[in-house]
Amino acid sequence: MKVAFQGAKGAYSELAATQYFAKRVEALPVPEFADVFRAVAKGKCEFGVVPVENSLTGSIHQNFDLLLKHKLWICGEIKLRISHSLLVPQGTTLAKIKRVYSHPQALMQCHRYLKSLSRVEAIPYFDTAGSARYVAAMGAPDCAAIASRSAALHYDLKILKAGIEDNKENFTRFFVLSKQPKRSKGNTDKTSIVFALRDIPGALYRCLEVFSKAEIQIFKIESRPIPGRPWEYMFYVDIGEDISKAKTQKALECLKKVSTRLKVLGSYMQG
Amino acid sequence: MKVAFQGAKGAYSELAATQYFAKRVEALPVPEFADVFRAVAKGKCEFGVVPVENSLTGSIHQNFDLLLKHKLWICGEIKLRISHSLLVPQGTTLAKIKRVYSHPQALMQCHRYLKSLSRVEAIPYFDTAGSARYVAAMGAPDCAAIASRSAALHYDLKILKAGIEDNKENFTRFFVLSKQPKRSKGNTDKTSIVFALRDIPGALYRCLEVFSKAEIQIFKIESRPIPGRPWEYMFYVDIGEDISKAKTQKALECLKKVSTRLKVLGSYMQG
Repeated sequence: MKVAFQGAKGAYSELAATQYFAKRVEALPVPEFADVFRAVAKGKCEFGVVPVENSLTGSIHQNFDLLLKHKLWICGEIKLRISHSLLVPQGTTLAKIKRVYSHPQALMQCHRYLKSLSRVEAIPYFDTAGSARYVAAMGAPDCAAIASRSAALHYDLKILKAGIEDNKENFTRFFVLSKQPKRSKGNTDKTSIVFALRDIPGALYRCLEVFSKAEIQIFKIESRPIPGRPWEYMFYVDIGEDISKAKTQKALECLKKVSTRLKVLGSYMQG
Repeated sequence: MKVAFQGAKGAYSELAATQYFAKRVEALPVPEFADVFRAVAKGKCEFGVVPVENSLTGSIHQNFDLLLKHKLWICGEIKLRISHSLLVPQGTTLAKIKRVYSHPQALMQCHRYLKSLSRVEAIPYFDTAGSARYVAAMGAPDCAAIASRSAALHYDLKILKAGIEDNKENFTRFFVLSKQPKRSKGNTDKTSIVFALRDIPGALYRCLEVFSKAEIQIFKIESRPIPGRPWEYMFYVDIGEDISKAKTQKALECLKKVSTRLKVLGSYMQG
């Protein structure tokens, strides 16, 4: 069984996949988020894992847009604690480091730690694990990468310091994607939907009212622009109920009457 | 009168400022969005102009976070049609171009046009106008930049082709910031607020209900994570009413009871 993820070996997405599938799968790295969706859609991989939200920096909107574009099913949710490490080639010491490579968000999340190192230049790279691979390939004694502990193992780097993120409440939420609706594990108690508003007064309020009346919890709401229709939005909503439940079905019937372009993205167990 | 904007001379933010103030102001370029907020907060500039949303790519979240952090007032809104041009040093022809520099989002918004040019490499740069300045400084005959027409004038570049954006429904929305609440022009008919939810059932629904009951239109809702409180959010809401109106005041009194950390960001005339 194969799971596609974006990035290089040792990426946080790969850790998320390993956490969810308990190592029973082969994780396949692909270059772009769109490639994860394509690999699952074309049957190259049975599952895909993509990050959708970080507890400090917010949603990864590209993946919301891709959920709307592709006909895939969200069958699982993973919440992973993000802990960054400073990785260096064997033999390097802290005093030698002049340049630190990583994804801009990881650099930002370790801003305070990096400032504590004197005269170190932070250099943006495409992704965290990729920056570890790059630093390993260069082998320069004055370069370091910020990535996961797991990336150190993959690229034979030394963990000079672990847990260098400024804020420990750093979690990333991932979706597990499959081609067909499937229950991969546990009780599905969460459903993700997306819809647009009708041109009626209090449109958004009337959509949310549906769930309030059905006593269904709303976990998250995210708006994304509709290309070609300035200042109109698609709303991505996560609710606290399984799609197969009668009360969910009834609520969605009501939602259809007050919304447009309604699509169920999946039902899954809360991560 | 000075207006701070992020970027280089010829940036879309500068065009927005010029459109709003009708050239009656001096536009001051600063390197970062945070610098715009700081320049206004410290009184270096009377106004600041920052982009908050693009009709194709969505919100510029950094500026929402900065609105919460700084004690500034939104006193105006600008909607600017974004039209990109391909700019080259004098004497360059289309056939010579090998590299095109611009902000990643501008490159993405001209993806189709760039693909139509054979063997051209798209190279990300910090900002659009900055890329024009860079290409002008290099003066290499095989390099081009994607930026505004106005950037061509600033850096003595030739407009090889105008209107190269793939989607013409490309608008950016800007906020005009001031230190004190002020009515710079027109009738204020829009108010921006931000709040967090209380831990009560149907919390978000109950917040939006306030506006529905008052018959106040909601234009936009945007959620941002609360750092240190995973999966909790601040909600930025734009409503269609002036803050000084009795019905707005009454609605906000009701909102206070069902929300927490409520802050009024400003009242302004719809752009």
